Amino acid sequence: MYNFEYQNPVKIIFGKGEIAKVGANIPAGSKVLITYGGGSIFKNGVYDQVKASIKGFDVVEFGGIEPNPHYETLMKAVELVKKEKITFLLSVGGGSVIDGTKFIAAAACYKNGDPWDILSKRALVEDAIPHGTVLTLPATGSEMNSGAVITRVETTEKLSFMSPKVLPLFSVLDPETIFSLPDKQIANGIVDAFVHVIEQYLTFPVNAPIQDRFAESILKTLIEEGPKVLANKTDYDAAANFMWSATMALNGLIGAGVPQDWATHMIGHELTAYHGIDHARTLAIVLPGVMHINRNQKKDKILQLGERVWGVLDGTDDERINETIKRTVEFFESVGIQTKLPDYSVPTETIDTICSRFEKRRYKLGEKANIGPEEIRLILENRL
Amino acid sequence: MYNFEYQNPVKIIFGKGEIAKVGANIPAGSKVLITYGGGSIFKNGVYDQVKASIKGFDVVEFGGIEPNPHYETLMKAVELVKKEKITFLLSVGGGSVIDGTKFIAAAACYKNGDPWDILSKRALVEDAIPHGTVLTLPATGSEMNSGAVITRVETTEKLSFMSPKVLPLFSVLDPETIFSLPDKQIANGIVDAFVHVIEQYLTFPVNAPIQDRFAESILKTLIEEGPKVLANKTDYDAAANFMWSATMALNGLIGAGVPQDWATHMIGHELTAYHGIDHARTLAIVLPGVMHINRNQKKDKILQLGERVWGVLDGTDDERINETIKRTVEFFESVGIQTKLPDYSVPTETIDTICSRFEKRRYKLGEKANIGPEEIRLILENRL
Repeated sequence: MYNFEYQNPVKIIFGKGEIAKVGANIPAGSKVLITYGGGSIFKNGVYDQVKASIKGFDVVEFGGIEPNPHYETLMKAVELVKKEKITFLLSVGGGSVIDGTKFIAAAACYKNGDPWDILSKRALVEDAIPHGTVLTLPATGSEMNSGAVITRVETTEKLSFMSPKVLPLFSVLDPETIFSLPDKQIANGIVDAFVHVIEQYLTFPVNAPIQDRFAESILKTLIEEGPKVLANKTDYDAAANFMWSATMALNGLIGAGVPQDWATHMIGHELTAYHGIDHARTLAIVLPGVMHINRNQKKDKILQLGERVWGVLDGTDDERINETIKRTVEFFESVGIQTKLPDYSVPTETIDTICSRFEKRRYKLGEKANIGPEEIRLILENRL
Repeated sequence: MYNFEYQNPVKIIFGKGEIAKVGANIPAGSKVLITYGGGSIFKNGVYDQVKASIKGFDVVEFGGIEPNPHYETLMKAVELVKKEKITFLLSVGGGSVIDGTKFIAAAACYKNGDPWDILSKRALVEDAIPHGTVLTLPATGSEMNSGAVITRVETTEKLSFMSPKVLPLFSVLDPETIFSLPDKQIANGIVDAFVHVIEQYLTFPVNAPIQDRFAESILKTLIEEGPKVLANKTDYDAAANFMWSATMALNGLIGAGVPQDWATHMIGHELTAYHGIDHARTLAIVLPGVMHINRNQKKDKILQLGERVWGVLDGTDDERINETIKRTVEFFESVGIQTKLPDYSVPTETIDTICSRFEKRRYKLGEKANIGPEEIRLILENRL
């Protein structure tokens, strides 16, 4: 395996009823800004549980953070943070609310000019407002990592940043929050977590059996538990296992010491930016194309995925690779996520637009940095 | 799965050559006490690498920390820490040196009387001197957890304490430190890590597939990589995989949200206290007895261990349980660790002594707190 550094100090508070512990985990005397999204927390009882837990704190609220959180919206929250002299952020929601709140936390402390630079120029985040989360949608892993993805509507850009300064102090994971989620969001979460694992696993072998087996453990659990959650959203055990899988999928552990390939995410972000397709759905579209186009470079790991996760044992290497891609696609479709561009009415011209955007960026994608505009075209054409 | 809280902020710095980063991870201006054991670090080059990395720091040294570190020795280090106004502890060694240094860190800051109370009365550790480690022997997992086990020679007691205050700030894991270890220590490390996993896994099912599969991942990797290390100590990949397995075996992750059974450790400690048997060897003696005596309570998980880790698929439940115990014993013996009391010349009277000690303690052991003196007698008699 490669040399690596790994550190993840986020405190996880997991289980039913644990939202009651939020208040005890916020530093005494904090002035708290609760951030949230479209308002589902008012319907499912989460808001009431949070409020009951933080009784006694001085609290301000900021709602309306969108899926693929908008820079424009978040900058309004930054103004509020400054005006109200907020000292603690409490995000209550899914990955978009948490990601957005990470940006608010960093931008409110940014003193070197335009906070947009944090995203566009990867400007150093020197400080951030402390932040805790109450997760209501297992998917992105944002509750236990240092990354965030933000969209600027004005310029159709979807950019990310990472900083240990925006790691949540704590995250409360109550599986019962899943009970009231729409099927669509659960399906998105299953696919998002699945692809996160794949992007840290499906590269080339570096003799790292712990990382490989942990990755396969998460994939197998998602394949097993995801459909149970969809079949019965109030199956607490299935909800809990799905929730813990999604967190473990992207907290840095399985990616420590191994090559990674985030091409699927990078290409998928463009589909969201141009067509507003749900993040997870863009991953389900792009991943099979990446597997197909990079089948030689990824051969050993695709065969391992096939064998250990899907039980694909028979046939030539090429047949097993095809079968492994097919099984992966079938899994996405079985949870209700379509995997082709026409399923989302994406016109073929979008392929040109995306490729020309990557031409300007110069850097290449993939574990060997060899996926440029030409390869991206092949990947997307595979999805027509 | 059960509700749980999980937090592990230790920074892991993993790989060959990484000892060079020690200095950069110690707070500037620290007065450093290097702690070490019998002096192997002078022969294998680790001491020189550490000293080169911390050039510029004011450094004091304290060597001679024994296997099963002695309270009596550690209290001398506490005096030195106070006299020299040490502000940072750097332990360079295996689990005993790291455990001992955790106790030094806590005892030097203990203001409520006799520091022995930290062990004997589980007195609260309110503060501790910051501590970093350079691991030279994969086994105990102490480099990434908050626990320590200390022996008081005077009273033949081996007691433990846990506190987040003694979590290392960082731990450097360089697999090349394994290259010069004696076979005996490597074998001990393999068995120690293996049993750590078993004690968080082999209880009863609570529908926690991520924890189960992660545990099985570590077991399979130890079974695969351990013998490779013994066959060729300079096989870097095998050393690295063994080292990472031992850390993951006891950093809290696989035990989060599941029942645990530390009976093997608790009984094993007594064998070390009375007969000075290496810690790992006591585990190899006791575990098969625990599996045998608790075969009904642990039935589902023993069958799962047999099936998923050892490939035991055929026969009645009872036959499969016997075969799983047999395979586990054979694994220990294959790495050179004997598993019966007579192998270590332990007289049968020791069984009486240990049972009467547990009679005085009143609490019972095991995942259901139902292993008392009578059951401990059966477990040990099974090992004659």
